[in-house]
Amino acid sequence: MKTLKVGLVQQANGADADENIRRIEENVSACARRGAQLVVLQELQHYPYFCQAEEVAHFDLAASLDEIKQSRFRRMAAEQGVVLVTTCFEKRAPGLYHNTAVVFEPGGVAGIYRKMHIPDDPGYYEKFYFTPGDTGFYPIQTSVGRLGVLICWDQWYPEAARLMTLRGADLLIYPTAIGWSAADDADEQQRQLDAWITVQRAHAVANGLPVIAVNRTGHEPDPSGLTAGTQFWGNSFVAGPQGELLARAAAREEQNLVVEVNLDRSEQVRRWWPFLRDRRIDAYGELSARFLE
Amino acid sequence: MKTLKVGLVQQANGADADENIRRIEENVSACARRGAQLVVLQELQHYPYFCQAEEVAHFDLAASLDEIKQSRFRRMAAEQGVVLVTTCFEKRAPGLYHNTAVVFEPGGVAGIYRKMHIPDDPGYYEKFYFTPGDTGFYPIQTSVGRLGVLICWDQWYPEAARLMTLRGADLLIYPTAIGWSAADDADEQQRQLDAWITVQRAHAVANGLPVIAVNRTGHEPDPSGLTAGTQFWGNSFVAGPQGELLARAAAREEQNLVVEVNLDRSEQVRRWWPFLRDRRIDAYGELSARFLE
Repeated sequence: MKTLKVGLVQQANGADADENIRRIEENVSACARRGAQLVVLQELQHYPYFCQAEEVAHFDLAASLDEIKQSRFRRMAAEQGVVLVTTCFEKRAPGLYHNTAVVFEPGGVAGIYRKMHIPDDPGYYEKFYFTPGDTGFYPIQTSVGRLGVLICWDQWYPEAARLMTLRGADLLIYPTAIGWSAADDADEQQRQLDAWITVQRAHAVANGLPVIAVNRTGHEPDPSGLTAGTQFWGNSFVAGPQGELLARAAAREEQNLVVEVNLDRSEQVRRWWPFLRDRRIDAYGELSARFLE
Repeated sequence: MKTLKVGLVQQANGADADENIRRIEENVSACARRGAQLVVLQELQHYPYFCQAEEVAHFDLAASLDEIKQSRFRRMAAEQGVVLVTTCFEKRAPGLYHNTAVVFEPGGVAGIYRKMHIPDDPGYYEKFYFTPGDTGFYPIQTSVGRLGVLICWDQWYPEAARLMTLRGADLLIYPTAIGWSAADDADEQQRQLDAWITVQRAHAVANGLPVIAVNRTGHEPDPSGLTAGTQFWGNSFVAGPQGELLARAAAREEQNLVVEVNLDRSEQVRRWWPFLRDRRIDAYGELSARFLE
């Protein structure tokens, strides 16, 4: 049986990025000691979630891809002997920035993905900071498998999950930063969390592969004072290829999960639920349309 | 507030199609008395699920589209004053058959849809009976809204749900016949049911519209004797546009659900979760590929 031990680091970040990194390092090391071969960090893992407000000063947080590739995360992957999925604020040129996943091998960089779908709503002003990615949807080949790395808002798009699958992804991976607004009542908050879990479990079902989602936790204040800040809802999880939950973290606690995933199971599931067999590709052309009315 | 009362008829069918129709008639009438304006029947509502075995004699069950359009279901819609979603075994020509949804208005036929994705696995030998549809994915305009009628196996395909949405569907509707095999243990049965509910709730989430799924219940023997038959798992449900369950039937009981759906809510949900806004249509072209390796 071909298995993979996956570590998920769900963390609450403070204002001090160096201190956040120090704690990430501890957590990655803890996952590696528990046998994790692949460790997935939450979206923009070491920053406070700075997109709560539009501030030009925040562009100073960005780094060039070359700098990111030589960052402490590279050393972490090497020292802990793990494949490490990170997301960073990439400065590609003055006035051109991305939300970029960089996947590290113990021996260097395996590949990158630039977030393709960019959200923008109160508390998540990402369109101000991030140009939509130009990488397209290509899995990243690593020593532990082909990783379909997508980022946060991508998780709502079945198209992205499907293209990763058609290009041979073994796993889908979603680093995320999503939470509750205090302006919403408890029922609305529950619907949002359920929707977030449901849509990602459904990517596992529709594509017959495991899904890993890693979200941050903790409350972060809104520096603009416009809102009461965001309570990130944690709930990082791993689902198997029928969408079954293999592990799920709490909403309000920092937590490392280490989960064994059976990679052979995807093929078993696809044999009895062969959805790829029956796709009506002759009738899908207009999925490239904006709208059809 | 624009609302719609929807009736779902979850029934256990016997071998006698006329008796099944008689009970459907009672159930449609019961839903109408409770205020239903739209009534959705389970897939192939009045037949036993004959696809459990490959038998040429079963083709005698099929009828021409003209016959179906003049069937008792037309009268039912007229007499009860409802929009009625049915699915029938259509004989289009000798040797050419479809699994076809016909939507009736009180005043006649609103439109048809021929099942596009056809399953084939032990107990569900549909490829023997049904040619894949040639209608494409177009919602049917009715007096109660634009109905995105899809059928059973279609429910596993995000592409179908998305195309209905892009073509202006107000609701997605899935008549279904799916159940448990006695060969699977309880955990596997639970995973299958959860996957079925999850993937359809996710269509609601990803597209910001309500979803109605109507499944049959009851045990039907396998006429070939190859298997122990199928225990259809019921669980017909209505989900709102965040995937939230508004109603759900039991697994092993015949049940009529009448559920009020708030049609204005879809637009509210899409305003704060505007997934249609951010689709990367420039990068979706290869969704029309079979595979990309």
